[in-house]
Amino acid sequence: MLAAVITAFGGPDVFALTEIPEPAGDVVDVTLAGVNYADVHRRRGEYEKPPLPAVLGADVVGRRRSDGRRVAALLRGGGGYAQVAPAQHVVEVPGDVSDEQALAVLEQGLTAWHSLHTLGRVTADDVVVVTAGAGGVGHLAVQLARAAGARVIALASSPAKRALAAQLGAHATVDSRHPDLGAALDETPTLVLDSVGGRTFEQLHAALAPFGRIVAYGGASEVANTVAVDDLMTASTGVLGFWLQRVLDDPELYRISAARLFHLAGRGVLTARIGGRHPLSAVGRAHADLESRVTSGKLVIDVHRLA
Amino acid sequence: MLAAVITAFGGPDVFALTEIPEPAGDVVDVTLAGVNYADVHRRRGEYEKPPLPAVLGADVVGRRRSDGRRVAALLRGGGGYAQVAPAQHVVEVPGDVSDEQALAVLEQGLTAWHSLHTLGRVTADDVVVVTAGAGGVGHLAVQLARAAGARVIALASSPAKRALAAQLGAHATVDSRHPDLGAALDETPTLVLDSVGGRTFEQLHAALAPFGRIVAYGGASEVANTVAVDDLMTASTGVLGFWLQRVLDDPELYRISAARLFHLAGRGVLTARIGGRHPLSAVGRAHADLESRVTSGKLVIDVHRLA
Repeated sequence: MLAAVITAFGGPDVFALTEIPEPAGDVVDVTLAGVNYADVHRRRGEYEKPPLPAVLGADVVGRRRSDGRRVAALLRGGGGYAQVAPAQHVVEVPGDVSDEQALAVLEQGLTAWHSLHTLGRVTADDVVVVTAGAGGVGHLAVQLARAAGARVIALASSPAKRALAAQLGAHATVDSRHPDLGAALDETPTLVLDSVGGRTFEQLHAALAPFGRIVAYGGASEVANTVAVDDLMTASTGVLGFWLQRVLDDPELYRISAARLFHLAGRGVLTARIGGRHPLSAVGRAHADLESRVTSGKLVIDVHRLA
Repeated sequence: MLAAVITAFGGPDVFALTEIPEPAGDVVDVTLAGVNYADVHRRRGEYEKPPLPAVLGADVVGRRRSDGRRVAALLRGGGGYAQVAPAQHVVEVPGDVSDEQALAVLEQGLTAWHSLHTLGRVTADDVVVVTAGAGGVGHLAVQLARAAGARVIALASSPAKRALAAQLGAHATVDSRHPDLGAALDETPTLVLDSVGGRTFEQLHAALAPFGRIVAYGGASEVANTVAVDDLMTASTGVLGFWLQRVLDDPELYRISAARLFHLAGRGVLTARIGGRHPLSAVGRAHADLESRVTSGKLVIDVHRLA
């Protein structure tokens, strides 16, 4: 099979289209593979360095060879940028969900879903603030919070991103670069979903209503936050964290929540944005696009297109 | 009217039974007043020093003079150790709840209720750990968690206290002095209610299941805890804080939750322990008992008994 292989860590030019043996065991005949920001870190050798040569890529959609079923898979050990991938963390894709949507909804949608529901316990009474509201997880969280009946305020850094968030269902949008985010909100939030950290986290946490909670699922600002429990008591608020691995550790929870996301995608309640579709030979270009932030939406690799 | 008045901060002997004018405005003709540990701190002048002479006492039950209704009241400015008290934060007491139970259930019950429900979002799926499980709030939290269908593990420092917690509905009990509380639990908790802080908080937080949460409503250990948001993400857990004032700030929430507690007390689902009943002349003795921890359960002052 063909795969985009790296033999060294480095820039987006390290990928080479290469014929390599199929993975052993239960496999998926891949149609589309996803490109995620975590893959950029891995390509640079910044964390979880795989042994080289390596095939990166953490999510695929295709057919499971053992039973012919259409599935999506999350590959925690990589292997996605290939025509055949390990059948790891496989979930069935219903007929009314396209390959593209299944791929684009799954990983980011699980983060949005569990941050909002499992940890945030969102209800129709909530005023939900979503940071990076046009981002990979954020634009899905806006739709899911809206579907839960909540009032939704999206933060984003540009007029175009704020327009997108509004189009996806945000009742209000706020410039994420505002120096005082609490003051910039015209309603008091009861639930915040934050992927930024740093002063964004601090200001939105301070803005919470009593009994409000902030769910952190990322730290794009790379500023580590700490919280004093005494301050949580005084304000009567909560801070919760999310990491997707904890869902994958629980196969039943993973299966149920993935099915729920696909159900919403099939009904059109949840629609992931697609940022671009590249041939397997152009994984490097997809990485470069992601790094330069010129695109928004899921980047998809068509593993059977070679140029 | 008669009141137990302090003219100086100090030991339990500073109270003097004194004839003073009634408070102005809307009042409650008091039958019973409660003694709370926060009053001990106030008597010692340790926080929120009231101007002297002062009447301490933060909760009463009696009849509201304006309409003759039987009510309980929470007095954030004190005034409870008296035959007439300000009608502050008044809630009606149903006929099937005794004066003693109304008094003993209200303040501590609100803390238990909101920690479990409003912040902890307890469900029948939860394994709930209650620290100080025989204490003022803890022994009510054990009953409320059990009533919510959860599995309940109570921590307490003595065999007698653990026996009480078991009698109140705890499925299991653990010695709170165990050096490794996580290892001492034979089930993985999904919700912890903590009034201790320090290493108790740390160990129970570390023991939480993914998506579990710890609600802090006090810090008896007087060790301040901090939490790193990165660690919350890795574990996918949450830390929430509770302070009763935030309920009193929201009259509708206060009214609804107090009515809910009284409903459970009237049905016998929730029964507060009474630690002793003293005449108004013996407030000092009640304080001394509370400080020496010889009693457990609510200490009640009968303001019409003078000796």
